[in-house]
Amino acid sequence: MATGTLYGVGVGPGDPELMTLKAARLIGSCPIVAYFAKRGRQGHARRIVDGHIGPASRELRLEYPFTTEVPVDDPHYPKELSAFYSRSAEEVAAELDAGRDVAVICEGDPFFYGSFMYLFDRLSQVYPTEIVPGISGMHGCWAQAKTPICHGDDVFSVLPGTMDGALLAERLKGSDAAVIMKIGRNLEKVRTALAEAGLLDRAIYVEQGTMEGERVEMLADLAHAPAPYFSLILVPGRQGLR
Amino acid sequence: MATGTLYGVGVGPGDPELMTLKAARLIGSCPIVAYFAKRGRQGHARRIVDGHIGPASRELRLEYPFTTEVPVDDPHYPKELSAFYSRSAEEVAAELDAGRDVAVICEGDPFFYGSFMYLFDRLSQVYPTEIVPGISGMHGCWAQAKTPICHGDDVFSVLPGTMDGALLAERLKGSDAAVIMKIGRNLEKVRTALAEAGLLDRAIYVEQGTMEGERVEMLADLAHAPAPYFSLILVPGRQGLR
Ligand SMILES: C[S@@+](CC[C@H](N)C(=O)[O-])C[C@H]1O[C@@H](n2cnc3c(N)ncnc32)[C@H](O)[C@@H]1O
Ligand SMILES: C[S@@+](CC[C@H](N)C(=O)[O-])C[C@H]1O[C@@H](n2cnc3c(N)ncnc32)[C@H](O)[C@@H]1O
Repeated sequence: MATGTLYGVGVGPGDPELMTLKAARLIGSCPIVAYFAKRGRQGHARRIVDGHIGPASRELRLEYPFTTEVPVDDPHYPKELSAFYSRSAEEVAAELDAGRDVAVICEGDPFFYGSFMYLFDRLSQVYPTEIVPGISGMHGCWAQAKTPICHGDDVFSVLPGTMDGALLAERLKGSDAAVIMKIGRNLEKVRTALAEAGLLDRAIYVEQGTMEGERVEMLADLAHAPAPYFSLILVPGRQGLR
Repeated sequence: MATGTLYGVGVGPGDPELMTLKAARLIGSCPIVAYFAKRGRQGHARRIVDGHIGPASRELRLEYPFTTEVPVDDPHYPKELSAFYSRSAEEVAAELDAGRDVAVICEGDPFFYGSFMYLFDRLSQVYPTEIVPGISGMHGCWAQAKTPICHGDDVFSVLPGTMDGALLAERLKGSDAAVIMKIGRNLEKVRTALAEAGLLDRAIYVEQGTMEGERVEMLADLAHAPAPYFSLILVPGRQGLR
């Protein structure tokens, strides 16, 4: 018997209408729809596809053994998390072995800072695998902020708010346009780095882009407080070219 | 009478199924579907939406007064091009003034190196404007190359192949992952910069990603030749984290 196909399916930044036609088709037709979720939470990708899962599909929930964020790039990257991804890959493999296609749904794009890659790394050598790209969070955010991000020969960078502040400022100076992700408790450090790079006045803060509770504000006007998980900062590129 | 709404609608990288549900809805329902196109060509965005334009819609073709590429960031940025964008904006404005919604369709994402911004800059202060993000070319390319581009705390850069070679190598060294766009006649310069940054062995060349004629190859194996307009280079980030 032929094995099933593994699909890594991006479902976009939050607004369900920002799913692609291909994502909607696969989510409506694959016998198994799988997703990562935190304990006690529905899961962000799962919420986005609500109403699109086919009546004959079965859901495969892959539940993190933690309730809080784990910094996956930490040198102490926990063995436990790696073991969780291996167990998840085995659960998905069991469905593929039984000949069933599995759509793993992913917020934004599966290959852009997504945890789908942990399944991909473990399974793509063994099973037929296809990737359906999705609208990234940052694309949703600059659309909602009505802010063209870059054009022409701009250098554009995506920088994690977790970076060292001085290095962040240096990378910002070497870019025409930028997005800073993973803001959280790094908000003040990021604000200082932007000021240091002379870019604070241009920086736009977007929270929950394209979702309920969306908020778009000039970063300079934002009160001091930790930012939620779904937040990022846009630094639009060279402006005013007509 | 109320004016119409201006929609900047991303239609994705090439495969029509990579259009969002929202893009398909607006293209099927807006009375005017507008797009830039070169003389004698159908226009890339127009080709992607074939079969999605509503039976009651009218097409508004905005034809460039040139047949070849014009480097819009050139210090000699031609007045003629600016005048063309102003004329195009007037044509769109006339429809909006008549109360008709206009969907301007754009390859990839409208705000990511897109020419839609020339209409946006001229019209968004005057008319209600909404942006529908699209899947960028690079997202389509890394999906087709089956290559996770970045994860964790990677620094990711988008660099134009038009940059000075030494500066390009320097920016590459300061990034964990990168995409190089606008390859064209810059292919050899880009290849040299990647070698200089020690990244040539990782670099993947993608031509016509998600479209007919798609080609995915390791850059190191590629014959010397100018690359076509729809081509880019992927430099995937830190690998091997399990
Ligand atoms: C682990 S990354 C996942 C990115 C996702 N795969 C994508 O393609 O957008 C999560 C980060 O993306 C950003 N993000 C994703 N979606 C967002 C949204 N709708 N609004 C604001 N930020 C968002 C936040 O900075 C968050 O910390
Ligand atoms: C002016 S930019 C437009 C980008 C577009 N707005 C987007 O969001 O992808 C054009 C460049 O994007 C890249 N590109 C766009 N679509 C592509 C595709 N399907 N395959 C390969 N390269 C593509 C090429 O490097 C090309 O030179």
